[in-house]
Amino acid sequence: MTLDPRLNDDLAAWDAAHFLHPTTHIANHAKGVVAGRIVTGGEGCTIVDRDGNRFLDGFAALYCVNAGYGRPEIADAIAKQAHELAFFHSFGGHGNEPAIRLAKMVMDRAPAHMSRVFFGLSGSDANETNVKLAWHYHILRGEPQRRKIISRWRAYHGSGIVSGSMTGLPGYHARMGLPLPGFLHTHTAHHLRRPQDDMDEAAYLDWLIAELEQMIETEGPDTIAAFAGEPAMGTGGIIPPPPGYWARVQEVLDRHGILLIADEVVTGFGRTGSMFGSDHFGLRPDFITVAKGLTSAYAPLSGSIISKRVMDVLLTGSEEHGLLAHGFTYSAHPVCAAAGIATLDLVDSQGLVANAGHVGTYFKEALHEALGGHPNVAEIRGEGLMLAVEFMADPGKREWFAPMTVVPKITAAMLARGVIARPLPEGNILGFAPPLCLTTAEADRMVATLTDAVTEVLG
Amino acid sequence: MTLDPRLNDDLAAWDAAHFLHPTTHIANHAKGVVAGRIVTGGEGCTIVDRDGNRFLDGFAALYCVNAGYGRPEIADAIAKQAHELAFFHSFGGHGNEPAIRLAKMVMDRAPAHMSRVFFGLSGSDANETNVKLAWHYHILRGEPQRRKIISRWRAYHGSGIVSGSMTGLPGYHARMGLPLPGFLHTHTAHHLRRPQDDMDEAAYLDWLIAELEQMIETEGPDTIAAFAGEPAMGTGGIIPPPPGYWARVQEVLDRHGILLIADEVVTGFGRTGSMFGSDHFGLRPDFITVAKGLTSAYAPLSGSIISKRVMDVLLTGSEEHGLLAHGFTYSAHPVCAAAGIATLDLVDSQGLVANAGHVGTYFKEALHEALGGHPNVAEIRGEGLMLAVEFMADPGKREWFAPMTVVPKITAAMLARGVIARPLPEGNILGFAPPLCLTTAEADRMVATLTDAVTEVLG
Ligand SMILES: Cc1ncc(COP(=O)(O)O)c(C=O)c1O
Ligand SMILES: Cc1ncc(COP(=O)(O)O)c(C=O)c1O
Repeated sequence: MTLDPRLNDDLAAWDAAHFLHPTTHIANHAKGVVAGRIVTGGEGCTIVDRDGNRFLDGFAALYCVNAGYGRPEIADAIAKQAHELAFFHSFGGHGNEPAIRLAKMVMDRAPAHMSRVFFGLSGSDANETNVKLAWHYHILRGEPQRRKIISRWRAYHGSGIVSGSMTGLPGYHARMGLPLPGFLHTHTAHHLRRPQDDMDEAAYLDWLIAELEQMIETEGPDTIAAFAGEPAMGTGGIIPPPPGYWARVQEVLDRHGILLIADEVVTGFGRTGSMFGSDHFGLRPDFITVAKGLTSAYAPLSGSIISKRVMDVLLTGSEEHGLLAHGFTYSAHPVCAAAGIATLDLVDSQGLVANAGHVGTYFKEALHEALGGHPNVAEIRGEGLMLAVEFMADPGKREWFAPMTVVPKITAAMLARGVIARPLPEGNILGFAPPLCLTTAEADRMVATLTDAVTEVLG
Repeated sequence: MTLDPRLNDDLAAWDAAHFLHPTTHIANHAKGVVAGRIVTGGEGCTIVDRDGNRFLDGFAALYCVNAGYGRPEIADAIAKQAHELAFFHSFGGHGNEPAIRLAKMVMDRAPAHMSRVFFGLSGSDANETNVKLAWHYHILRGEPQRRKIISRWRAYHGSGIVSGSMTGLPGYHARMGLPLPGFLHTHTAHHLRRPQDDMDEAAYLDWLIAELEQMIETEGPDTIAAFAGEPAMGTGGIIPPPPGYWARVQEVLDRHGILLIADEVVTGFGRTGSMFGSDHFGLRPDFITVAKGLTSAYAPLSGSIISKRVMDVLLTGSEEHGLLAHGFTYSAHPVCAAAGIATLDLVDSQGLVANAGHVGTYFKEALHEALGGHPNVAEIRGEGLMLAVEFMADPGKREWFAPMTVVPKITAAMLARGVIARPLPEGNILGFAPPLCLTTAEADRMVATLTDAVTEVLG
């Protein structure tokens, strides 16, 4: 679809006039004020825009192009499938070979106690499928009153009405009338965000667990369907869990019959340096939500991976009641499944999971060396190739900068130097989540560019 | 992805063990009892399974492969885009050329009072986007209490939690705890389903409008955000609107400040014989939901088309508040947009809209001739290439067959003769919605096969 820009002077006008972009300042966009960079190609960790500018993409689009740009293996698989059979549906037991093969590949990689995968399109719809199936599970077991969903402040679970209700970023709730009733949020599990200055890590963990336990008691344990969390938080700040956190959360949930949804849209398929974040951090979820890394974004595909214990109840329910009436027309789309197979093959053949671990460790150390001593750097954190630098006015006194005042300037200064990093919402947190094929040389360039930008913006 | 079945004896076992299919009898599927037909290719209106069986597909998969199977033009566009730039996101004003071009093409075809298109993945998510933006619109206008959504019994609006709540088929609500509170349903607009035997069409229309008006009054007009309806109902029975229905509904909605969502996932891009059902039936919607025909299902893509009057409020809101925080990672996916462009080009170059009108008229007449006199045929109806035959025990006395007892047998008898038609849920309604490239010869074969099957099942 590369058009010669000279033949397409209309492109910017069409863009502003007709195209409502996702999560954009739409008023500025409509006026042509938002840059509206049109990306036309890429290779590895680099993208190219229609004016020929090249950028080293430190965020893999939206931490999704995990295998990197321009992989002919995935494009070929898509092309082959589009020519052979672009589409047939999978309702009523129908199927297609790529979807079946991909289901097998996903389950071969998923934690051992998981049973089956349902395919959707977006991370948002896969989280919603998991909520719906959690409700279905409780109804089949005679506990229809178990409806509430607990997630965490600063979580990102999507942008639908239900997934957006699970999301714990007020900017996604404002003026949308979200969250819906029954969608509750506990405190963000991040020691930097502890309620009292003098709480040590152990005391803070106790406090977090007590808060969860108390929310459950107050609401009534038998009104709660599921707890949802990213094994390591992504958009909310790239925040790995406090050590011991998930084991203790899990214990509370088990004791109260509450299911666990592990949202692995970001962590799934290698980003932490393990295939799944659930394995990396020791979760035992009832549902795992996947998307992004499943196809490296070459085609839209998500998955809801369901545990044996939930699946057993669903199968018994179907014995009794017949059809499980849940599905999207494009569930298990053959072209998207073909992209998934080629992606997971590449993840293996290129050793991307191990690379995420090794280069991630190198990258984090380089960040520490370059910026660990900067007076405004409160924390350098992350796991594998999801890393963040959080900036504060005075980290020692826990004095915060006003949200989104400093980091957007830093990422703009980086962009001017050809490197993309992402300002994470509602704070001053700079995120890196590059393709998993990142080299140490590329990591070095990202760190050097960040360092220059920090000097430019903060001194 | 065609594998030699002899090399793949495991495929059926993998399918049963790992793959949770959409809207399937999952217990039977897990036991291998559901047929699990694996489709491997197709051409025009015909699909081929891995055993080499060919079927004339009278339902275009799920009324979505509108341009027909095996169109190299669409597959080539997908392949080209996947190689050039498989993905970059469209957040923050970023874009890609196919998405911009497709936005322009959609808006060139949409009713004149529409303004912009937001891209999602599924019909379900596009309906949900429309509900969310309707809430946002009312909040921005100072009416945050306008939250309720009215749709109709027998509507199909999707399978998510919100879209499934809008759906008016009890089988999609059962054991899921749907609909959510605040999602209301009015009577199905279908004279065959009138409350009293002796109501004529005019009296029935008055009754329908009075029922809607009364629901609005009872609930409180200022608590209602939007009314959603398919211009011609699809899955609920392929039911064109009673003449005059939409004009009168529209008048009621306008008077009460209630927005109209026209769900054109089935009717959009030609199925009725017009480009949009809204034009065909004279609706003036605030939102139009599209999917299926937009890409002929070659890649997952949906759209929420937004009217100027809603867009103006959204833009003013963004002036004041900044970012409109709504979007899916894969919104405006370049590969899917490329499929959309190639599809709409084919719709034009092949004259598919006009063909749907002409062949649809021919098809309906042929159905009337073949089956109009059958004692169990209550109604033959439809518009363009969405047609249905409804069966009753005694149409004269309006005695119904028990739901799903007769038509599934007829469609099974047709399948045995190589023709696919679809039993529509919760009734005895046989639906045809073939690719829009259907020929009259193919229509003849469908009618002849149906006639044989009816004779076999009902005499
Ligand atoms: C953890 C997590 N869950 C869910 C989602 C939603 O996925 P999508 O944008 O595909 O709907 C995202 C998107 O960034 C995510 O990061
Ligand atoms: C009218 C209508 N709306 C919405 C949908 C939902 O679309 P999807 O299955 O892509 O979510 C459908 C699907 O058949 C439909 O027919």
